[in-house]
Amino acid sequence: MEQRISLITLGVADVSRARTFYERLGWRGQEAEETVFFQAGSMALILWGRAKLADDSGVEDSGPGGFGGVVLAHNVRSRAEVDAVLADAARAGAEISQSARETFYGGYAGCFRDPDGHVWEVAWNPGFTLAPDGSLVLPDFG
Amino acid sequence: MEQRISLITLGVADVSRARTFYERLGWRGQEAEETVFFQAGSMALILWGRAKLADDSGVEDSGPGGFGGVVLAHNVRSRAEVDAVLADAARAGAEISQSARETFYGGYAGCFRDPDGHVWEVAWNPGFTLAPDGSLVLPDFG
Repeated sequence: MEQRISLITLGVADVSRARTFYERLGWRGQEAEETVFFQAGSMALILWGRAKLADDSGVEDSGPGGFGGVVLAHNVRSRAEVDAVLADAARAGAEISQSARETFYGGYAGCFRDPDGHVWEVAWNPGFTLAPDGSLVLPDFG
Repeated sequence: MEQRISLITLGVADVSRARTFYERLGWRGQEAEETVFFQAGSMALILWGRAKLADDSGVEDSGPGGFGGVVLAHNVRSRAEVDAVLADAARAGAEISQSARETFYGGYAGCFRDPDGHVWEVAWNPGFTLAPDGSLVLPDFG
């Protein structure tokens, strides 16, 4: 298995509602067969009906609402950008689950939940470089 | 908000157990403060204690086990590779939640769950091009 991820699919209750939320954040996607696809760097983010996603994956779904144990992060280049993105997310209909604050690693971050409860962290981390195209490059920890 | 994802953090019950699983799949990461970081294309996959992740994100955690409504996908270049990666995952300790089968979009895919229940799809999709470096490029649906 090569060390890479091709797609992240978020199961949603209402594809149109979810698409509207991400479009309010400025994302632009394409839709086919009630599925929305967003190119995101070297991979794609997909919105699809949660029941279909569970069924397609062969897993039981006890229903949305709880914490799925997954957090997506969107890193930015400054503290001010953290505040700006969280404000944009709130205006787009997100719940701010964690207000921006200093982090234990010397950065600054806060979190929002999208309309289906999927958690995003918005972070400025001075130890993680962002390339001009937004790609994240881990430092050598050694 | 720029259209990109920087990190995916998977909340895990036991960081060492989770790291061992991904290393058995051939991934190589770096560890710092009980957190494992894997470079994955233009982003990074992180393993971190589930309770810490929930607390850090300001969300309640009713505990692991259920479906989190998120599926990560690893796309490959042939049907045979789907079977090979699923076999590797099973040998590494994954549960195969969906055996490989023909998909509605004319591809071939199956799913596994990692030791914490996080779902991965392994897919061959003739409509989605993989660049030589493994990056996924969505087609123009128009």
